Amino acid sequence: MSKITQLMKNEVFLAYSTYTAIVLLKMMLMSLITSFFRLTRKAFSNPEDITTFGNYETAKKYLRTDPEVERARRGHLNDLENIVPFIGIGLLYALSGPDLSTALLHFRIFVGARLFHTIAYLTPLPQPSRGLSWLLGFVVTISMAYRVLTTGLYL
Amino acid sequence: MSKITQLMKNEVFLAYSTYTAIVLLKMMLMSLITSFFRLTRKAFSNPEDITTFGNYETAKKYLRTDPEVERARRGHLNDLENIVPFIGIGLLYALSGPDLSTALLHFRIFVGARLFHTIAYLTPLPQPSRGLSWLLGFVVTISMAYRVLTTGLYL
Amino acid sequence: MSKITQLMKNEVFLAYSTYTAIVLLKMMLMSLITSFFRLTRKAFSNPEDITTFGNYETAKKYLRTDPEVERARRGHLNDLENIVPFIGIGLLYALSGPDLSTALLHFRIFVGARLFHTIAYLTPLPQPSRGLSWLLGFVVTISMAYRVLTTGLYL
Repeated sequence: MSKITQLMKNEVFLAYSTYTAIVLLKMMLMSLITSFFRLTRKAFSNPEDITTFGNYETAKKYLRTDPEVERARRGHLNDLENIVPFIGIGLLYALSGPDLSTALLHFRIFVGARLFHTIAYLTPLPQPSRGLSWLLGFVVTISMAYRVLTTGLYL
Repeated sequence: MSKITQLMKNEVFLAYSTYTAIVLLKMMLMSLITSFFRLTRKAFSNPEDITTFGNYETAKKYLRTDPEVERARRGHLNDLENIVPFIGIGLLYALSGPDLSTALLHFRIFVGARLFHTIAYLTPLPQPSRGLSWLLGFVVTISMAYRVLTTGLYL
Repeated sequence: MSKITQLMKNEVFLAYSTYTAIVLLKMMLMSLITSFFRLTRKAFSNPEDITTFGNYETAKKYLRTDPEVERARRGHLNDLENIVPFIGIGLLYALSGPDLSTALLHFRIFVGARLFHTIAYLTPLPQPSRGLSWLLGFVVTISMAYRVLTTGLYL
């Protein structure tokens, strides 16, 4: 394992790596959840996806939208919209040399907030639980961006 | 601040970091704009989001789509589709050792084009203003990818 | 070219760089394919996009959805959902010091699977061709995440 790069020996970067992998795996889980609802609710978007349910005439009723499928898809898109900034800004943040404890606080709150957001979205829990968990992740990302831009700015 | 990594002392990487943080913050702004239109236009997707407007029977008329909300959402998705390639290819481009002035030119044009794209989308400005700003960002990303692939190719 | 960073001299990182650039360019191609279908099928989302077809009253029939446009858009979103985790986890994987041959195997299978996925989606090919190519890319990303999390975990 002598080939492990220097970056991976940096504790902050290792923490970034760990939490990024976790939150991306969580996002990938949304694909499985959407597929699960598509199969159990029989709600598909593509004609070629319903051929296992018989000929097109009998199966075309499954080319439809379903509230649970759409809910999972919205949760997935919300993940993309929020996790992409976290990964991009978080990488730069990890490289900007923050204290390990501060960095861990950011990463843990973000990942915790996004896990809760998914639970709040899929259950669904009453608002403002989903809204507040979204806001928490948003604020953590802003905080990391502030650190990145104040550490070194090159316009 | 002695812990700042070597990469952050590289001027090209610092410029990449600055412009990436800016363009991701701009993308995150789209979430706030969408929320603003959802609240002012009263147009929501989730039943749990409308409970503040009274009981479900009186409030369910707010479970609807609104042209301004959909416009903001399309702008957000267009950002994702274009900013994700910029961040990924831009990181590799920054690591490929381009001239600082050339790199700054790429980053500035991309970020400027995306800022203008958002203004053109939300105003909306007459076409082809939105189309051209999209194309400009697209071409800048292709140019960076060309540099990445010609600097070192390992298939 | 003495400014090329150390990372770009690492063969695994160079392979990551090459395949990431290729798969992001492929994803960007989806924008062009969607635009092509919008123009040939005359199906647009924004009122300002149809002004070239005459005044609003005669042209508003082109503000509509088209099956081919929606299919290309779904393919594009599926790319975002799957290529974003590949880039994020793949970067950490490349930095974790895997064997070059193992890394190349992961990158080649992922990019091959996503290229085939796009062909299967747009043709469309009968299922399960699209589903299996999606699954293959998904499993490759999980495998890289496993390596990242077992190389070094910092919670």
